[in-house]
Amino acid sequence: GYAKLDSHREIRSGFPEVVYCSGKPDEFLASIYQKLYDENGEVFGTRASEHQYEIVKQVLPQVVYDPISHILKIEKEDKEHIGKIAICSAGTADIPVAEEAAQTAEFFGANVDRIYDVGVSGVHRLLAQLDTVQEANCVVAVAGMEGALASVVGGLVSNPVIAVPTSVGYGASMHGLSALLTMINSCANGIAVVNIDNGYGAGYMATQINRLAVK
Amino acid sequence: GYAKLDSHREIRSGFPEVVYCSGKPDEFLASIYQKLYDENGEVFGTRASEHQYEIVKQVLPQVVYDPISHILKIEKEDKEHIGKIAICSAGTADIPVAEEAAQTAEFFGANVDRIYDVGVSGVHRLLAQLDTVQEANCVVAVAGMEGALASVVGGLVSNPVIAVPTSVGYGASMHGLSALLTMINSCANGIAVVNIDNGYGAGYMATQINRLAVK
Amino acid sequence: GYAKLDSHREIRSGFPEVVYCSGKPDEFLASIYQKLYDENGEVFGTRASEHQYEIVKQVLPQVVYDPISHILKIEKEDKEHIGKIAICSAGTADIPVAEEAAQTAEFFGANVDRIYDVGVSGVHRLLAQLDTVQEANCVVAVAGMEGALASVVGGLVSNPVIAVPTSVGYGASMHGLSALLTMINSCANGIAVVNIDNGYGAGYMATQINRLAVK
Amino acid sequence: GYAKLDSHREIRSGFPEVVYCSGKPDEFLASIYQKLYDENGEVFGTRASEHQYEIVKQVLPQVVYDPISHILKIEKEDKEHIGKIAICSAGTADIPVAEEAAQTAEFFGANVDRIYDVGVSGVHRLLAQLDTVQEANCVVAVAGMEGALASVVGGLVSNPVIAVPTSVGYGASMHGLSALLTMINSCANGIAVVNIDNGYGAGYMATQINRLAVK
Amino acid sequence: GYAKLDSHREIRSGFPEVVYCSGKPDEFLASIYQKLYDENGEVFGTRASEHQYEIVKQVLPQVVYDPISHILKIEKEDKEHIGKIAICSAGTADIPVAEEAAQTAEFFGANVDRIYDVGVSGVHRLLAQLDTVQEANCVVAVAGMEGALASVVGGLVSNPVIAVPTSVGYGASMHGLSALLTMINSCANGIAVVNIDNGYGAGYMATQINRLAVK
Amino acid sequence: GYAKLDSHREIRSGFPEVVYCSGKPDEFLASIYQKLYDENGEVFGTRASEHQYEIVKQVLPQVVYDPISHILKIEKEDKEHIGKIAICSAGTADIPVAEEAAQTAEFFGANVDRIYDVGVSGVHRLLAQLDTVQEANCVVAVAGMEGALASVVGGLVSNPVIAVPTSVGYGASMHGLSALLTMINSCANGIAVVNIDNGYGAGYMATQINRLAVK
Amino acid sequence: GYAKLDSHREIRSGFPEVVYCSGKPDEFLASIYQKLYDENGEVFGTRASEHQYEIVKQVLPQVVYDPISHILKIEKEDKEHIGKIAICSAGTADIPVAEEAAQTAEFFGANVDRIYDVGVSGVHRLLAQLDTVQEANCVVAVAGMEGALASVVGGLVSNPVIAVPTSVGYGASMHGLSALLTMINSCANGIAVVNIDNGYGAGYMATQINRLAVK
Amino acid sequence: GYAKLDSHREIRSGFPEVVYCSGKPDEFLASIYQKLYDENGEVFGTRASEHQYEIVKQVLPQVVYDPISHILKIEKEDKEHIGKIAICSAGTADIPVAEEAAQTAEFFGANVDRIYDVGVSGVHRLLAQLDTVQEANCVVAVAGMEGALASVVGGLVSNPVIAVPTSVGYGASMHGLSALLTMINSCANGIAVVNIDNGYGAGYMATQINRLAVK
Ligand SMILES: Nc1ncnc2c1ncn2[C@@H]1O[C@H](COP(=O)(O)O)[C@@H](O)[C@H]1O
Ligand SMILES: Nc1ncnc2c1ncn2[C@@H]1O[C@H](COP(=O)(O)O)[C@@H](O)[C@H]1O
Ligand SMILES: Nc1ncnc2c1ncn2[C@@H]1O[C@H](COP(=O)(O)O)[C@@H](O)[C@H]1O
Ligand SMILES: Nc1ncnc2c1ncn2[C@@H]1O[C@H](COP(=O)(O)O)[C@@H](O)[C@H]1O
Ligand SMILES: [Mg+2]
Ligand SMILES: [Mg+2]
Ligand SMILES: [Mg+2]
Ligand SMILES: [Mg+2]
Ligand SMILES: [Mg+2]
Ligand SMILES: [Mg+2]
Ligand SMILES: [Mg+2]
Ligand SMILES: [Mg+2]
Repeated sequence: GYAKLDSHREIRSGFPEVVYCSGKPDEFLASIYQKLYDENGEVFGTRASEHQYEIVKQVLPQVVYDPISHILKIEKEDKEHIGKIAICSAGTADIPVAEEAAQTAEFFGANVDRIYDVGVSGVHRLLAQLDTVQEANCVVAVAGMEGALASVVGGLVSNPVIAVPTSVGYGASMHGLSALLTMINSCANGIAVVNIDNGYGAGYMATQINRLAVK
Repeated sequence: GYAKLDSHREIRSGFPEVVYCSGKPDEFLASIYQKLYDENGEVFGTRASEHQYEIVKQVLPQVVYDPISHILKIEKEDKEHIGKIAICSAGTADIPVAEEAAQTAEFFGANVDRIYDVGVSGVHRLLAQLDTVQEANCVVAVAGMEGALASVVGGLVSNPVIAVPTSVGYGASMHGLSALLTMINSCANGIAVVNIDNGYGAGYMATQINRLAVK
Repeated sequence: GYAKLDSHREIRSGFPEVVYCSGKPDEFLASIYQKLYDENGEVFGTRASEHQYEIVKQVLPQVVYDPISHILKIEKEDKEHIGKIAICSAGTADIPVAEEAAQTAEFFGANVDRIYDVGVSGVHRLLAQLDTVQEANCVVAVAGMEGALASVVGGLVSNPVIAVPTSVGYGASMHGLSALLTMINSCANGIAVVNIDNGYGAGYMATQINRLAVK
Repeated sequence: GYAKLDSHREIRSGFPEVVYCSGKPDEFLASIYQKLYDENGEVFGTRASEHQYEIVKQVLPQVVYDPISHILKIEKEDKEHIGKIAICSAGTADIPVAEEAAQTAEFFGANVDRIYDVGVSGVHRLLAQLDTVQEANCVVAVAGMEGALASVVGGLVSNPVIAVPTSVGYGASMHGLSALLTMINSCANGIAVVNIDNGYGAGYMATQINRLAVK
Repeated sequence: GYAKLDSHREIRSGFPEVVYCSGKPDEFLASIYQKLYDENGEVFGTRASEHQYEIVKQVLPQVVYDPISHILKIEKEDKEHIGKIAICSAGTADIPVAEEAAQTAEFFGANVDRIYDVGVSGVHRLLAQLDTVQEANCVVAVAGMEGALASVVGGLVSNPVIAVPTSVGYGASMHGLSALLTMINSCANGIAVVNIDNGYGAGYMATQINRLAVK
Repeated sequence: GYAKLDSHREIRSGFPEVVYCSGKPDEFLASIYQKLYDENGEVFGTRASEHQYEIVKQVLPQVVYDPISHILKIEKEDKEHIGKIAICSAGTADIPVAEEAAQTAEFFGANVDRIYDVGVSGVHRLLAQLDTVQEANCVVAVAGMEGALASVVGGLVSNPVIAVPTSVGYGASMHGLSALLTMINSCANGIAVVNIDNGYGAGYMATQINRLAVK
Repeated sequence: GYAKLDSHREIRSGFPEVVYCSGKPDEFLASIYQKLYDENGEVFGTRASEHQYEIVKQVLPQVVYDPISHILKIEKEDKEHIGKIAICSAGTADIPVAEEAAQTAEFFGANVDRIYDVGVSGVHRLLAQLDTVQEANCVVAVAGMEGALASVVGGLVSNPVIAVPTSVGYGASMHGLSALLTMINSCANGIAVVNIDNGYGAGYMATQINRLAVK
Repeated sequence: GYAKLDSHREIRSGFPEVVYCSGKPDEFLASIYQKLYDENGEVFGTRASEHQYEIVKQVLPQVVYDPISHILKIEKEDKEHIGKIAICSAGTADIPVAEEAAQTAEFFGANVDRIYDVGVSGVHRLLAQLDTVQEANCVVAVAGMEGALASVVGGLVSNPVIAVPTSVGYGASMHGLSALLTMINSCANGIAVVNIDNGYGAGYMATQINRLAVK
């Protein structure tokens, strides 16, 4: 009984408690899901494994698992979605992180446009979808390897860009540190950066901005 | 005649071109200031030296220099300011970066509340101004050394926090890299990070968010 | 027969030899436990695996294993405990290291107060237990990710704080290096730092300080 | 008027406010010294330059400057000193940091034994003064280059050791990072580390421990 | 008389010896310039200071100095130029390095097209000059800060791209290391990287490729 | 259906799409191979596992797998090869990367000479094959550990050298970062560097240069 | 048949070819052992696994495997040993590397004294064996964690010391980089450093020095 | 009077005390030189500035200063020199460090052969002097930038090689760290490394080895 669930969080921040599944012991995880579901009628967790899905399903059979984003959730039906967030990603391998961002924002009530596979080595692919990107209240740019996507996007839009470096790559990518440095040093205006692979954090902050824009 | 001024920027992004003064040759700087002033009736530059102030004053005597933020500007009178941005900073030595953020946001038309000297080693100082921080559409958290301010602020507010690590510190602060890492790894939700000492970038993005909130 | 056991250590330092179990070959581990138990009537080891517990149990059936802290020990009954050490930790995932510190200090004869799950993203949780923290002769602050807890604690207490960075986190946490840098650069007074995940080292030094305070 | 002096600090922590002189503007520094002297009848600052000494001397002629430790202070006469702290240092070039630690502890009311020039490349020099080191309530170990002194001292004493890496060295010493890593990884028990060149921080924490021991 | 001039280099490699001026003592520099001019009727040096220009001018009055690229040279008239190399650069501050590359390639007999100020934060600027870039036998991409230009260029052309990171930037740019990492991790095909600020090396290799293409 | 195959790539760049197999899900991989084979009558992939070979063989039984280079391909018969590329490698353990480069270049239509096991600790081995190396239009130098081969080769040839650091080594080789730094800092002219273990990228750029030379 | 065995090495250097087993494919390893044994009547390999022992035993049943040092060898009987090398090591976990050094030197014909478990946290253990250390022609100092042993040894002996950092440790030991930095920065004279865990390299160089001393 | 001169050093180690001049205060330096000269009839210091030469000349007019190696010394006449050490260096800019090594070894009584300007980008230069290098009892290899010289030399000689990385280079040379990593990872046998720019340390250890060889 060491950890305390922060149930007042929703009141303070307007966001419900989200479960970071990775590394949580089985019984502990099941009881958190149960408790949050009981309180809120829905529950959302990230970084869940196939195995953790099986565990939680035993207590909450309606739980849904997405093996790409590793999100494990029960979501209320007919949730209203507002505004518009655009999620851009560079390569196929970045999609899990992009989906973590997208589904986080959707769970928190935002409309999301997915613009995937628009890495800068073929810049025409991004330009082909320029309107969609420019119309969003906030853009999330997800990229590994050299992470250049954030700068190109930043130069094309007038709303804020949240950059998410991913650990995709090898060698000197150093598990995402190179992409992180690229994004932090961006010469474009209106870009801020979250941790490597932190799709959740980007989806969260994009939701905050989107809410302010709609309000 | 190598560099091209991006005069259409204001149309594309809603922000005028800003001069990054550091390292610009004297004649070049003077002519940029002249040109931008002629086009816009105002001009704003960061990282200017005392010497650069003298140079620009020769062509534009009304130019104003702030030796703390190193901002060199001519600003239109009676500019309207909207919304509210809170700028928090940790120690005395972080004030130059905080002021770069604050004056950038003000030049771009935002109202700014300054909450300085509220470093986490005396957390009562921040708590004493909690209302001001919580009411802002966006908070900028400026800190060097261990950069812990961003996390504490992030946990207290429901709007987005832009974290600015500074190069303040010595030894293992590694010219701001430690504070940058602290902020990128923050356990609080709703925080994204800009480059070390990049008060301008934080002020810019805070303005974008503030505009969306007011709109 | 390569390694020599430092049996005079207790006389020199007032602390018994402790076993660092990680990586020790099975037979070697069993014989060390046997030997230390024979000499002292108790024995204490850190970083033990489930498997090592099975091995030692075969020669010393009364040995006790804690799967959270990975401590494997036989402890004398009715040990007297003196003074007071407070162990604060930030997140659930930091508890194993916090427990390593806590149980080390208890084995060495200190009273310990556990103040867990008081990470800085919800600073009210720490403030709610301020009295306990301030009354301790020494505080151990355990945190991963950005490691900001040490600075906040340091600013609230007048006795020494031993900061323990943990490898909890991902991406730019770099397996605890970010938290280590945060803590080393702390702007609060009265903080010193031990190695990443070194709960044992913190518990040891806290005991030294607590003994001096009680003496 | 941006910075607020933390005058209640002495009440909260039992330590007076100390001035970190480096980088403070002239007028600002003079007025802080004046104000703290008026409140406390003494004032203590670190990292002061020769030039800052001249500035402060103009308003407080009795101020004393030590060009080795760069400490600038006015100290009450007949201050009582308690307990015993040992300050060990490795090479000649480490003495400024060792003195910052020593004079900080003395200003805060501790007795200090200086054991300088006892680097590990001639371990007989340290062993010759073993009694003095072992009798102290707390030992501060100051070393640059490879920073091995902390481990050797830690193995010889039963009271806590505070290790201070210094920026002394060249090449791969990386301005003190190597010594910091050495000390953090120490195989000896009872060692914790402060920032590179942070003699002040070590003197502060040694004073805390010494007070607990005497109380 | 320690250093030996490598006068047979031109025969072996088809390139004359080039002087790396930085750090060379005055007399030594003057005599190298004299000797190479006597042998070849021309001489080319990089990283020369204003002061070194004055020194060499005393022995070779016809020497020409470019304060932007820091190139100090005497060049034969009516040199024939072949093929085509495109040199792209991101920001104004990258021009010195771009010019080092451009003038090196021109001295070695290549035609050079300069496409400056086409950083990725305004990708339309590069696209506007796409034909010029695509027609070159080899493209040199020069960029500091996040260095994303190389990837965008790499995706647009079918000939090889030599990427030159520059030390332009601040904070986490780490004097060009961030841009270097970006370029090494590029997701585009046909990119290889030289050292930070090594315009000379890029101009040299571009010349090799251009010669092969024309031959 | 997230990722879009870049089928027009061959038209734009003269190179067909290549599959980066590592991490691709089984069904996805099989369908990419099928699709590219249908379009081009051949297909080439790198970083394939034994398991992926089995998967693809089920849909394309004629696919060929090389367990050394990890290349998985179907290649048109009687492909014409032009020009000459030399691939030098330092140690036995570097051969997989060297073969990735060699087979990539061959697939793209180049003649390749392999000069393996010519590490600089026995420089006579390289000198024995000097003619072969000097005759190539482009040399690829593959080396791990200290990566010195690139500099020695660079000094011996007049055509461009593409250096490939490998992750071969241990300890301070830091998974290839040391070799990468060695190569980037090379004192020889005409060397540019690709990512650690990126044989594919080197083979690609060598092909570009070889084509220009033959054209 | 890619790799060429360097059979003339013994003639050039006075040392036979040694097999670095790690990562070698099974058949390849067996044939190297066979070939070297046929040529020299003995064969020596490092970093061998249990599995590789089984493989080689099938072709050379007399091969001997030491699971501590991971050395796999057939050694001529009645080999003469000359001079004296001392191998000091810090902790139990450093013994595998120390043994790699010791057995390498013995295979190459040196007498070796082992002085294990003399880490600097109990400096009396090293001093107790001072005579043995001082009499050797060369000392190898093996240590992980903070690696301070090399400096203490270096200060006690007048012959050369070869320092071997090991990957023993956790957290900020960074797999041996901390110990490497400690040793490279040593304040003692007469110390040079080899790669992390490179017992072989230290044994080799110690043999070279020992031979010179005996000659 | 803080520092103690280690006058018994010559008796213990066979080497006199050497003065590390860099950073020593003027009066202190003069008195050390005086004292050591009085005791030994000669005195040797490294890293001396022009200014320090002037200071010492006032008390010891016969002192000699070499502005290339920055060595400041008075040397006994008719000193006997024994054995042979070869000092190889890569580029012109490495000569100061090579000379620090050479003159240190000569002061300590060794014969020295200088083989300068033999960097690996022109390997024929080193091969032309192979005999000299192979005859030495010990070789010192001095190189900056990529530091590849050590590996090439190591492969050509059978006696030990001491590698000295220098801070020569720019960009990714990181003030010598790249060269240090190159040398530590050398694939050649019989190489050990000292700190960046530590010519003194290399000359010292080469002398130890040379003495053993002559004895
Ligand atoms: N040398 C030093 N190193 C680290 N912290 C110091 C040092 N000297 C003073 N301080 C701290 O800095 C605080 C004053 O900082 P400031 O308000 O910037 O003058 C003091 O209260 C001390 O906590
Ligand atoms: N800017 C530069 N960056 C890197 N290498 C250069 C540069 N300029 C000249 N070089 C190289 O440095 C060599 C001359 O070096 P040095 O003998 O030290 O003058 C030339 O032959 C070139 O190979
Ligand atoms: N070994 C490799 N290293 C780097 N890039 C590669 C490698 N193999 C293929 N590629 C590139 O990766 C692209 C395919 O990436 P993907 O769409 O993720 O399969 C290819 O078009 C190549 O440009
Ligand atoms: N250039 C150098 N690099 C490293 N160590 C040196 C150098 N010159 C002298 N030393 C060492 O520094 C010691 C003197 O240091 P110090 O007592 O600070 O003058 C000498 O005895 C040498 O061991
Ligand atoms: Mg933008
Ligand atoms: Mg928040
Ligand atoms: Mg405190
Ligand atoms: Mg101790
Ligand atoms: Mg391309
Ligand atoms: Mg070449
Ligand atoms: Mg010695
Ligand atoms: Mg050799």
